[in-house]
Amino acid sequence: MFIGAQVSLYPMTSDFVGVITAGLEALAPHRDRLRVETDDMSTLMVGPPDALFDAIRDLFAGAARGPAHVTLHATISRGCPGEPDDPACRCETLAQAQTQALSERQALAHGAVQDATVLGVGIDVQFSLYAMGEGRHMDEIYGCIAFLKTSGTFQRSKNFCTRLRGDAGPVFETLHQAFLRFGPAQGHVTLDLTASANSPGLR
Amino acid sequence: MFIGAQVSLYPMTSDFVGVITAGLEALAPHRDRLRVETDDMSTLMVGPPDALFDAIRDLFAGAARGPAHVTLHATISRGCPGEPDDPACRCETLAQAQTQALSERQALAHGAVQDATVLGVGIDVQFSLYAMGEGRHMDEIYGCIAFLKTSGTFQRSKNFCTRLRGDAGPVFETLHQAFLRFGPAQGHVTLDLTASANSPGLR
Repeated sequence: MFIGAQVSLYPMTSDFVGVITAGLEALAPHRDRLRVETDDMSTLMVGPPDALFDAIRDLFAGAARGPAHVTLHATISRGCPGEPDDPACRCETLAQAQTQALSERQALAHGAVQDATVLGVGIDVQFSLYAMGEGRHMDEIYGCIAFLKTSGTFQRSKNFCTRLRGDAGPVFETLHQAFLRFGPAQGHVTLDLTASANSPGLR
Repeated sequence: MFIGAQVSLYPMTSDFVGVITAGLEALAPHRDRLRVETDDMSTLMVGPPDALFDAIRDLFAGAARGPAHVTLHATISRGCPGEPDDPACRCETLAQAQTQALSERQALAHGAVQDATVLGVGIDVQFSLYAMGEGRHMDEIYGCIAFLKTSGTFQRSKNFCTRLRGDAGPVFETLHQAFLRFGPAQGHVTLDLTASANSPGLR
């Protein structure tokens, strides 16, 4: 399986280059578990889901600690049939999920969010989860939405996406669990993620 | 069918509120064909695909004419089973696509891009197209990629997405055609879009 993301950080300040450069430094502790390549539009990260979500969380939480309004967008993917298999992306949780009922996966997802480390940074998120290549994809999506609504980070449903709000630790763990535990375990699942912090619209 | 988008504009300048406010004025000519609602994270637009892509194009092209580095993200969706049917979203092109072979749809898509109005604004785009709810979704994706590579706006393939580059007119027409002509005509198709202009990384 191939797992990774294209990630972009958007600081709404004239010093955006400085904020982005500092943000990329937050990836340093994760570089031994991820392949990281940056171009003019986004940073590619390839590796196992736990390292991937921790890295995106730390990149965004670091930027969100500053005063600037900052947003992040990530296109996160697992199991795309067009990508090569990569042993570095191996994930035990996904291997186990193949034999777990939806209710069991929901309970495991709840436990992981409850155990998430609190970082002391409040963020807003909206995202869409897409499960492809099987006729019953909406059953998994509705199962995921049921988890989200009781996750403690749910804010509201919107057209085409779901809003989360809270500390960056539990919010990113909610995203991590949604991506890992729902949709076909060996299939093609993607997550379209937008995060926001320090928005003047919320002051 | 329900068709629409969640759209966000990100100007990388301390005057981001001014750029966003001016950008939203570019939507004025499209408001009679679209339902438009803005919150602190994104602007919802609901309506037929031609109005939708023209509105997003004009929003972004207007902001890209300024000096600031600006990006836009949109989550665009048609046929989501979780959304209500809306007669205002009716699209003749989608109705016709049900009986058209892949090769015919590719030819129609090429013609539309060749006829697109040139706006005089150069932009970069990267996007992912997702077709859900059927086993053979990759056939449609590969058919779309074949169209993209000969569209005249193709820049390169990346992991998880495709890069386009060129004038905002043909580039947005390429996205419009990818969204309309590929994937199941009455099924659930989404597009995860990032646009960028005036990036210092390209100067």
